[in-house]
Amino acid sequence: MASISPIKGFPEWLPPQRMVEQQLLDRIRRRYELFGYVPVETRAVEPIEYLASKGGDADKEIYVLRRLHAEAEDRDGSGLGLHFDLTVPFARYVVQNRGRLSFPFRRYQIQKVWRGERPQDGRFREFYQCDADVIAPEKLSLQYDVEIAQLLFEVVSDLPVPTPTIQVNNRKILEGFYRALGLEDITPTLRIVDKLDKIGPVAVRQLLQDQLGMSDEASGKVLLLSEISGSGLGVLDQVRALGVQHPLLEEGLAELEFVLRGASDIPDGRLRANLKIARGLDYYTGIVFEGQLDGHEDLGSVCSGGRYENLAASLGSPVKLPGIGVSVGLSRILARMFGKELLAPSRQTPTCVLVALASEEARPVALATAQRLRRRGIPTEVYDRAKKWGEQIKYASNLGIPYVWFPAGEGRPDHELRDLRSGAQGPADPESWTPPADDLHVGILRKGG
Amino acid sequence: MASISPIKGFPEWLPPQRMVEQQLLDRIRRRYELFGYVPVETRAVEPIEYLASKGGDADKEIYVLRRLHAEAEDRDGSGLGLHFDLTVPFARYVVQNRGRLSFPFRRYQIQKVWRGERPQDGRFREFYQCDADVIAPEKLSLQYDVEIAQLLFEVVSDLPVPTPTIQVNNRKILEGFYRALGLEDITPTLRIVDKLDKIGPVAVRQLLQDQLGMSDEASGKVLLLSEISGSGLGVLDQVRALGVQHPLLEEGLAELEFVLRGASDIPDGRLRANLKIARGLDYYTGIVFEGQLDGHEDLGSVCSGGRYENLAASLGSPVKLPGIGVSVGLSRILARMFGKELLAPSRQTPTCVLVALASEEARPVALATAQRLRRRGIPTEVYDRAKKWGEQIKYASNLGIPYVWFPAGEGRPDHELRDLRSGAQGPADPESWTPPADDLHVGILRKGG
Repeated sequence: MASISPIKGFPEWLPPQRMVEQQLLDRIRRRYELFGYVPVETRAVEPIEYLASKGGDADKEIYVLRRLHAEAEDRDGSGLGLHFDLTVPFARYVVQNRGRLSFPFRRYQIQKVWRGERPQDGRFREFYQCDADVIAPEKLSLQYDVEIAQLLFEVVSDLPVPTPTIQVNNRKILEGFYRALGLEDITPTLRIVDKLDKIGPVAVRQLLQDQLGMSDEASGKVLLLSEISGSGLGVLDQVRALGVQHPLLEEGLAELEFVLRGASDIPDGRLRANLKIARGLDYYTGIVFEGQLDGHEDLGSVCSGGRYENLAASLGSPVKLPGIGVSVGLSRILARMFGKELLAPSRQTPTCVLVALASEEARPVALATAQRLRRRGIPTEVYDRAKKWGEQIKYASNLGIPYVWFPAGEGRPDHELRDLRSGAQGPADPESWTPPADDLHVGILRKGG
Repeated sequence: MASISPIKGFPEWLPPQRMVEQQLLDRIRRRYELFGYVPVETRAVEPIEYLASKGGDADKEIYVLRRLHAEAEDRDGSGLGLHFDLTVPFARYVVQNRGRLSFPFRRYQIQKVWRGERPQDGRFREFYQCDADVIAPEKLSLQYDVEIAQLLFEVVSDLPVPTPTIQVNNRKILEGFYRALGLEDITPTLRIVDKLDKIGPVAVRQLLQDQLGMSDEASGKVLLLSEISGSGLGVLDQVRALGVQHPLLEEGLAELEFVLRGASDIPDGRLRANLKIARGLDYYTGIVFEGQLDGHEDLGSVCSGGRYENLAASLGSPVKLPGIGVSVGLSRILARMFGKELLAPSRQTPTCVLVALASEEARPVALATAQRLRRRGIPTEVYDRAKKWGEQIKYASNLGIPYVWFPAGEGRPDHELRDLRSGAQGPADPESWTPPADDLHVGILRKGG
């Protein structure tokens, strides 16, 4: 038996961190529901044929299943892989249930996904994605691109983490621009430009010339385009000033303008056009987003998404089902926040009241008292052994439990309650005592950053 | 590309069902937290060596991972399997983090698990388990067996489903009894007796004699024991009346009595001793539980659990870490409730208010109105096109959205609100109007059964 140790890329939180994670998941969910998005959950597995060829290095990151002792002819579980995102499964779900959904279908979905990539800072093999998407048959209004931008900003800025900036671009701009430069297959160019932040402009230009045979002038223009960014509509003019013309480029610029204007209530330049954003997955066809947190730009994007016109068709749908959506990478955010100790729960347990145990004989009264408090919605536990008061109080104190309850009996005529923070102790009635709202449930303490 | 269809054993719910599922998950979580249980989530994968040999047919049900295009020498992902329950991962988590947890450690854990078994009614390959366990070093008080019994009854009876009955037994009774009859390896006997409900007493007795060489008298006693059940302490006398004696049997009976007495506030005979309960997993060593729902006994157990003294040791822990826990099989419960149409959400979307759109020009006001309502916690969406009022109202009505909001403007001096159920329409202020609590969020409608 190997010694027990963590598995790289598969993060697990200690209970206080898990309490924070759960509260953030709840906040994200509430915010999606405030916008009227419907919850969906899909199975963890998809046929491999749906997962494969969705872009970049994704294929070799797919985990496939087989049964431990399956015989050769037993195909159970074979042909299935773990989903690597929630967009492909959602598109498949919509195609499969098309007749039973009401459109435009706005759904949110919060689940773990798996990618067999090399684990490194902020990159995991198992992590939470918190997605919201809209899909409709045939045509999906650009209004949803605006709504998704607003929703994404609201969801992330509602979290107790640094403020996000959402970067927006349009694949059509890149594709039109590259086509105008004479490139037919634009995917390799997108992939190379996508490496800008990692390897820098000089290396990117070299790759464009060496690998794609691009001219000095064309590769120069590609780089100039990628350097354009800003929160105002002026970016559109900067793109046009490069003197490259193509109908798809114009269409992309018009859509980008529509989103920048429509989502203008996102404050303080927090929505920025950034012409180098491409996103790695192949299914995006229009607007694309990604977001960073202030002061944590080195972490890379913590949320991303975009418009996909043809994903359903690629899964075999006879009907066109365009969609747009975003995903918040909560695990990446939390790993950073925990790593820098920026978030903690207000206590180490849901318990609000510890009922002290005077003696074994007093146990029935202690248990009944706990039940009375629980029936009134107050999280309560009973100390498990009749030990000295000091030890029981110390136990509560170590976990941050705010109150210790001393049941009536054994010379104590009334129930008494001690607030461990003030040390104040006095009579209390289990049928009427109510803690302040802030004490009832675990809160989140935000530190520094 | 194969046509898109469900995968057997991997259930997916439509949005209304998913809304019900999510509310039930929330209720279970709240109830666990009311008892002071701390949330934990573990990775979906474990080293195969931790998963294997945990009992019965479990091994061949384990799904193992490999990467899609992994080369032979690339071992990434190999040696890992998907967890088939949450008890083994939790025991591993406690051993791994022992120095950073506070004991007795009471945790709840709600996650999907995977078992490659033959899919059939109520049996899935992917399903939710909702677990609560307590683990402590060296010795864990029997009080926790009592607490877990109470907690299990409360959690399941808090759900909007038929009332559960919890069956309790003790492995020590079975083991002591079998040993007194001269059997050394009791596992095969447990496995055969576990088939009682499936194959009946005659076949079980035959198997005991044929496969284990048990005498006519011994196999008769095994069957007599398995027929004893009841909610009172009289069952203990019935067992003793069989005239079989063994120290382990006595220990088991004393523990069973402790639990039956301690959990006597479980009402109406809803906690019953049942001497044939064994549970399939090998790690149980003492008290075992399982529960059925009234009128759905044919579904089998919908919750189960028990005491495990040596699970941590089997994972390589140098310290003994006894535990007790239970698991609620929510997916099995829901599949039955949905199959018989016994549960439905009060509406088909979280949206409480649909803001109607009079014209494209009116969109900014409509969007701003929606934001004002959302800021006050009211789930709101905006209709996406300026269509006839009738069509917009019909959309809301089809989804069960209770209110349609007509923003001020275009000849309407005030904001107006229509209650779609009464048809009443009148002025409303987006800064002060509040829906009744029952309308704010989706509720659950319980039908029949």
